[in-house]
Amino acid sequence: MIETKTISETKEIIQDNKDYTLFSWSKQKGTNPIAVKYGEGVYLYDYDGKRYIDFSSGLMNVNIGHGDQRITAAVMKQMQEVSYVTPSCVTKVRGELGKKLAEICPGDLNKAFFTLCGATSIENAIKLARLYTGRHKILTRYQSYHGASVGAISASGDPRRIPVDAQQAPNFVHFDLPYAYRYEHGEEALLKDCVAQLERIIAYEGPGNIAAILLEGQSGSSGCFMYPDGYLKSVRQICDKHGILLIMDEVMSGFGRTGKWFGFQHHDIVPDMIAMAKGLTCGYLPFGCLMVSDKIAVKYDDAVLPLGLTYSAHPVSCAAALETLKIYEDDNLIENAEAMGRYLDSRIEELKQKHPCIGDWRNEGLLGCLELVKNRKTKEPMAPFNAKPDEMVVMNKVAAKIKELGMYTFVRWGYVFIAPPLIVTKEQIDEGLAIISEALKIADEAAQPL
Amino acid sequence: MIETKTISETKEIIQDNKDYTLFSWSKQKGTNPIAVKYGEGVYLYDYDGKRYIDFSSGLMNVNIGHGDQRITAAVMKQMQEVSYVTPSCVTKVRGELGKKLAEICPGDLNKAFFTLCGATSIENAIKLARLYTGRHKILTRYQSYHGASVGAISASGDPRRIPVDAQQAPNFVHFDLPYAYRYEHGEEALLKDCVAQLERIIAYEGPGNIAAILLEGQSGSSGCFMYPDGYLKSVRQICDKHGILLIMDEVMSGFGRTGKWFGFQHHDIVPDMIAMAKGLTCGYLPFGCLMVSDKIAVKYDDAVLPLGLTYSAHPVSCAAALETLKIYEDDNLIENAEAMGRYLDSRIEELKQKHPCIGDWRNEGLLGCLELVKNRKTKEPMAPFNAKPDEMVVMNKVAAKIKELGMYTFVRWGYVFIAPPLIVTKEQIDEGLAIISEALKIADEAAQPL
Repeated sequence: MIETKTISETKEIIQDNKDYTLFSWSKQKGTNPIAVKYGEGVYLYDYDGKRYIDFSSGLMNVNIGHGDQRITAAVMKQMQEVSYVTPSCVTKVRGELGKKLAEICPGDLNKAFFTLCGATSIENAIKLARLYTGRHKILTRYQSYHGASVGAISASGDPRRIPVDAQQAPNFVHFDLPYAYRYEHGEEALLKDCVAQLERIIAYEGPGNIAAILLEGQSGSSGCFMYPDGYLKSVRQICDKHGILLIMDEVMSGFGRTGKWFGFQHHDIVPDMIAMAKGLTCGYLPFGCLMVSDKIAVKYDDAVLPLGLTYSAHPVSCAAALETLKIYEDDNLIENAEAMGRYLDSRIEELKQKHPCIGDWRNEGLLGCLELVKNRKTKEPMAPFNAKPDEMVVMNKVAAKIKELGMYTFVRWGYVFIAPPLIVTKEQIDEGLAIISEALKIADEAAQPL
Repeated sequence: MIETKTISETKEIIQDNKDYTLFSWSKQKGTNPIAVKYGEGVYLYDYDGKRYIDFSSGLMNVNIGHGDQRITAAVMKQMQEVSYVTPSCVTKVRGELGKKLAEICPGDLNKAFFTLCGATSIENAIKLARLYTGRHKILTRYQSYHGASVGAISASGDPRRIPVDAQQAPNFVHFDLPYAYRYEHGEEALLKDCVAQLERIIAYEGPGNIAAILLEGQSGSSGCFMYPDGYLKSVRQICDKHGILLIMDEVMSGFGRTGKWFGFQHHDIVPDMIAMAKGLTCGYLPFGCLMVSDKIAVKYDDAVLPLGLTYSAHPVSCAAALETLKIYEDDNLIENAEAMGRYLDSRIEELKQKHPCIGDWRNEGLLGCLELVKNRKTKEPMAPFNAKPDEMVVMNKVAAKIKELGMYTFVRWGYVFIAPPLIVTKEQIDEGLAIISEALKIADEAAQPL
């Protein structure tokens, strides 16, 4: 009677969760959650024994894969010593982690302000940029996401900010940065036009009013849009010209996700601050970090740094992060991300021949996104930006099929994300793509045949 | 040669921390941190073997004391199953924790939205209050602290917001609520005057524009100011009259700190939302929760709840919280907080006879604060509100003596906080007060003799 027991346990778990907890970004009645019992490598298992291949690494954060017990051991060791000290005290792991991050980061990015998550890293970056420069405006792009707290959501150009639009903090300016697939004048013009537009906007807003430009190191959940070649380099030059700080949000793109430690490293620039989270502990424990250049940090040698949070430099999270960084290196995960990314690209090329619904594939390392269309020639999207429920009929069926076939990943509007843990093998990529290919047949039916 | 080795290890740890990490709310050069090696019960130990009695429970969060290995075991168990799932998935511990919190909370506060910390609980409370009511203003008191993110610091009435004043989010209104020791017209008048003033401010601001009143369940780091008897009850009535939500910030005062589960339970009211963090996991892991009434939650059965964060309902933090709640109950810690609080009060009465510098003692359970004065009659403070460095000469000496004698606690302006872990014994209270008494001799020298 194990089967019966298991099924009723699943039901009870889901019911408790529905009765007593709230679900993010959802109608509470509409949720149909997976009850996760166990995770190992690229797989998650529910209480009925069903296996899901995790093709989004949780929320693009579980880079080292699930269930790595080396993290458990590091966490346990720290908890046997001390679990919590206030941020005014120090621990061995805090210092070691700061040193290791300074080693990983380029340039003079040598000072770590430890936070809790992506949003708190961004919030502190914004605050510090304004304090340091004495200026108030922050420039960010549309189609970006920086977190949900008041400061971070105001910085975001993602429609998740629209329901709380009236609650925005002031002095955030968004600029447009179209992506190549949907830009009509070609890639070369895209670079030129975007840089020129950014320069105009800076002039309109007043360069002396602008504290920082905040950009994702590599676009993620907005749709993995690629920066035009040379774009970030131009942005860096524009910043230098006007005394504007450049903050890179590496929360999603950091820690090997794109085949390098940080996404911006594909673009030969060094920012003034890096916001980190996600891959820093791979979600094993909550954690974040704002890396700050010496140039900025030195100002606070003799002035009070007016930033703080209860869990800053949490010893157990520091220990988890230190072990995570060791695993990236010991297991050559960043190299693997790069190699598997190339393999993934080649396999997607094959799928493109087979599936008329695939309009575009954008990927760097293992941060990839399929954009589905109804018609390759007209590029009519399978679901538009910020699609309404009645525009999601086909895509919802695709998502349901993916889940049914045993995959966990993100489907958003017309996008299917592919961002497996960096430990993924060729065989596992094949296994995942077989599921996606099967689900794409549903979208193919709604698409103009090749 | 162990001594030498130990000392150099301490130096190296502190140097790494100073070289590669940033310190909150401090001049970086001015920090003189304790390097914590080990924690057990009410004690912390540094690398030189020096013992500190922790009389502020870390940041008023380590309620169960340091080094409780039952938490380590619960964390390890969860990490052996699964460490991270996205908030759209569910886990057994998430449902169990939601149910347990619903059991602990009064009224219809039955839905848990899990967050990361106090600030994220507050941010989500504010967002939700505005979304639910369709109103924009949030009323909070001066001399309160709700966190450092843009939304939370804008809500705060603490001077920590002053350096980032220009970065505040709009539509926060602060009102005054003096405390009895420094109110000239007596306690009865205080209640009447404060309620009348709040009613006037609501009328001036427009009751139909006010989404919520946000108040600490019990004042903490601002100085442990007591609400006048009947005040919160009046606030609840005013809220009901105008359709304003009442949000209690129980981040510091929650989970037994005041001798009840929540601070507001001393005042016979039920709020609409409770922001929680700190004592929920006692700092062993970062975590927070916003408890929401069914009345509010039901609106999101068929409407999207536009809130979310990567680490919402983190499985390992949920497991740590569940075990923490069990420890409160198994070890009768809330009862002990109440009993030890009474003992502490009686011992402070004795100290008052001895130390002319003690002006006021405010405490509920184990959330207490000594206010030091230069003169008991005139009540001239030993250091004023938001004291400048040159006004802190005496208090800095008091703080240095406390640390030298082997105590970790908060000294802020003219306040010495006393908030030991809820496991504290009479003997440990005596031990701690002996240190404080010794340090107060320094302040006595600056005070008018009795």
